[in-house]
Amino acid sequence: MSIKNNEITARNIDFGKWYTNVVQKANLADYSSVKGCMILQPLGFSIWENIQSILDKKFKDLGHQNVAMPLFIPESSLNKESNHIEGFAPEVAWITHGGSKELEERLCIRPTSEVLFGEYYSKKIKSYKDLPMLLNQWCNVVRWEKETRPFLRTREFFWQEGHTVHSTSSEAEKETMDILNVYKDFFQNILAIPVIVGKKTEKEKFAGAEYTLTVEALMYNGVALQSATSHYFGQKFSKAFDIKFANSNNELEYAYQTSWGTTTRTIGGIIMVHGDDNGLILPPKIAPIKVDIINIKNDDNVINISNSIKEKLISNNISCFIDNSDKSAGFKFADSEVKGTPIRIEVGPRDLKEKKITIVRRDNNEKKQIDLNEDLIKIINDLLNEIHNNMYNKALKNLKDKTFEATSLDEMVDIIKTKPGFIKASWCGDISCEEKIKEISGIKTRCIPFDEKLKYENCVCCKKPAKELVYFGIQY
Amino acid sequence: MSIKNNEITARNIDFGKWYTNVVQKANLADYSSVKGCMILQPLGFSIWENIQSILDKKFKDLGHQNVAMPLFIPESSLNKESNHIEGFAPEVAWITHGGSKELEERLCIRPTSEVLFGEYYSKKIKSYKDLPMLLNQWCNVVRWEKETRPFLRTREFFWQEGHTVHSTSSEAEKETMDILNVYKDFFQNILAIPVIVGKKTEKEKFAGAEYTLTVEALMYNGVALQSATSHYFGQKFSKAFDIKFANSNNELEYAYQTSWGTTTRTIGGIIMVHGDDNGLILPPKIAPIKVDIINIKNDDNVINISNSIKEKLISNNISCFIDNSDKSAGFKFADSEVKGTPIRIEVGPRDLKEKKITIVRRDNNEKKQIDLNEDLIKIINDLLNEIHNNMYNKALKNLKDKTFEATSLDEMVDIIKTKPGFIKASWCGDISCEEKIKEISGIKTRCIPFDEKLKYENCVCCKKPAKELVYFGIQY
Repeated sequence: MSIKNNEITARNIDFGKWYTNVVQKANLADYSSVKGCMILQPLGFSIWENIQSILDKKFKDLGHQNVAMPLFIPESSLNKESNHIEGFAPEVAWITHGGSKELEERLCIRPTSEVLFGEYYSKKIKSYKDLPMLLNQWCNVVRWEKETRPFLRTREFFWQEGHTVHSTSSEAEKETMDILNVYKDFFQNILAIPVIVGKKTEKEKFAGAEYTLTVEALMYNGVALQSATSHYFGQKFSKAFDIKFANSNNELEYAYQTSWGTTTRTIGGIIMVHGDDNGLILPPKIAPIKVDIINIKNDDNVINISNSIKEKLISNNISCFIDNSDKSAGFKFADSEVKGTPIRIEVGPRDLKEKKITIVRRDNNEKKQIDLNEDLIKIINDLLNEIHNNMYNKALKNLKDKTFEATSLDEMVDIIKTKPGFIKASWCGDISCEEKIKEISGIKTRCIPFDEKLKYENCVCCKKPAKELVYFGIQY
Repeated sequence: MSIKNNEITARNIDFGKWYTNVVQKANLADYSSVKGCMILQPLGFSIWENIQSILDKKFKDLGHQNVAMPLFIPESSLNKESNHIEGFAPEVAWITHGGSKELEERLCIRPTSEVLFGEYYSKKIKSYKDLPMLLNQWCNVVRWEKETRPFLRTREFFWQEGHTVHSTSSEAEKETMDILNVYKDFFQNILAIPVIVGKKTEKEKFAGAEYTLTVEALMYNGVALQSATSHYFGQKFSKAFDIKFANSNNELEYAYQTSWGTTTRTIGGIIMVHGDDNGLILPPKIAPIKVDIINIKNDDNVINISNSIKEKLISNNISCFIDNSDKSAGFKFADSEVKGTPIRIEVGPRDLKEKKITIVRRDNNEKKQIDLNEDLIKIINDLLNEIHNNMYNKALKNLKDKTFEATSLDEMVDIIKTKPGFIKASWCGDISCEEKIKEISGIKTRCIPFDEKLKYENCVCCKKPAKELVYFGIQY
């Protein structure tokens, strides 16, 4: 029987409160004395470390290298690309003083680093032989948001931002798509989060991009989360920052660029896709601890057996933690549950008399006793795979159950009021319809999906012939 | 024969210029449009990644966990510990505006994070059962320095800062020393940099600490570099930040704390201890690329052999890079040298006729031909060890050759003028002598070493009975 953690608000009663409770009870993040900035506690940060190490390896395997650009951008540099400054100026933090001295020029803290990479590339790139240049950085960025929420929207957050330069548009467009596929694969196969991939509309694209590709996930409550984006810049930034190279005919050309990123909000996505009323449920491939070994009672036999289990797991690269505190078994179970550890192994005197231990899955609470002489490593590895698959399928079912179709604006409004989720609808491609839909229903376009065909011939809003199938949704 | 890189100023002619040349020619770091902030380029950043991964593993093996505290500190929080604010206020950067709105309270960018950890611990720690709490973070910090220099002194730099809380002073003091030993071991056994370890004087200790332990290295030119520090705080910060715990008698006690860190300036140390007139020389254990394979000519046979060498090295976890560009062999040698790759393997048609390749050590330029059928992996691994040992011994010789003794202030002044280095001298322990020495000779105390006994009975300055043997030196 699962032990309820009474301090967590039920997910179906108040999703927002449930979310905040899980963030705090699982010790993922805490509030700091700085409004809108969070403290990433050990569990939250170690999830981020795992996200980093998995994605970093993928980027490096594709030939990218890491660098570190400065935290600051001079005001005059930020102003170089006009769409970009318009998009970001309202939400940057400004440094005006160093020590007691006023600065000659204000510096903003990077909200993103196109500007600094642009200046760097302008200096470094001379010839097509220098290309492609494939750089990435893992860093903190700052956007002065009004409403904040741990992981989802914080004034400081962590991310990676890739910035690449190419000698042809086709190579740069391929990069934009290759990276989108890295993200898609990561969300689905590592985080067990099904996603819709597609293109942002003109209105919703990144400030300064030719176009933006996006990975969109749906939370348990039917709210969408933009989870990663990959932008094709064409020559927009290279013209603003004078990034030119001599091509093989020795003619100067403006370079083609991309940028792409994903952030700590991904952790918010993990919580909201997978969590339940007992707390977090971590996808096995990202969980810092795969197995909690729980001593039901700290007697010598229990301690010996749980230590030997730990050794066996560790030597097979399965991370684990023994809870041998003097707290009650019920407390230990609840603690393991709230932290979302995929599997717990209960080691107790009663089971041990029969040479057994009990294994409990976090995702569905299934329990089974196994003999001490069974092949524990195989059992655990199989179970971790099963858990991943079950979590993915559960999330996919939620996504499908909460994806609706609408053929009129009235229908859209009705769906949003009664059963939030993705709404698929046909669109004429006109920004005025996109704006009207937002005004009336309150929802925005999420993306134009790659894999789906137009179903209804007329625009959901103006009824003129439709050009695109679009996913709409409320978003975080 | 080694190819000279004519663009690097000779080390003995102008050490400062030589340093800057190496930083730039090796593509370690570049200047940005923000004064005093550098761009860590791929080679520089990958050295930092290696430093991080090695130290991070050591910290975690000792039970530390990583977290992320906010980038900002509210002015009122910074003011809580009076010595601390005095030490840091003159050099912090201030945020005054978020977007177009003036902030109600100014925020500084963390110059170090005692304050934020202090506030966090004050909230989190209730009982001795919560202790020890052993946290660390890898992050960027900002100090508004006037004079800056890549790696050595930059307005933004990267570091790790460990912050730990203990229930007894002895446990906290043990932590302070254990971490110092981690650093000492890291510098000597990984970076091949011999160090003097000891205690800072009262005057030179960290703002707010009870005492500071330090790792001091000596650069090729005889200038000292404070390379890592470990501070014992006692209860100073716990009193300022109200960090109390209930002890086993259920009485409230102020906790005992430590903090410790090392920074990207370590990369400056690697350059200045090991580099030569041809550029960087990377200690093998930290080098991102251990072997450059250089195709003397890109014919089919050369390409096949160098690819097969690469495969062999990679499958034995020896990182390598093939230079198969169409540049001249001389250019490729110089490029491998300036980047400091420990070993280069030259693959050329003439050698291949005799079924041979040539191996060249970066540290001493020794060349040897080996047969293609010899055990390459063993040869390379042995050579990497030899290179490490040779680099350490060379640096140790430099340290010994440039460590002097002085029994009078005149002697100190004379040594500093003619042959900079460490000066060992006896000291009465009085801060007025320390200040006088600084005023007259321009040099500061580096540390009171652990392993050495007082040799001369009288203070080098006032001639009163001496209490301590002290290392003095000019520092970066």
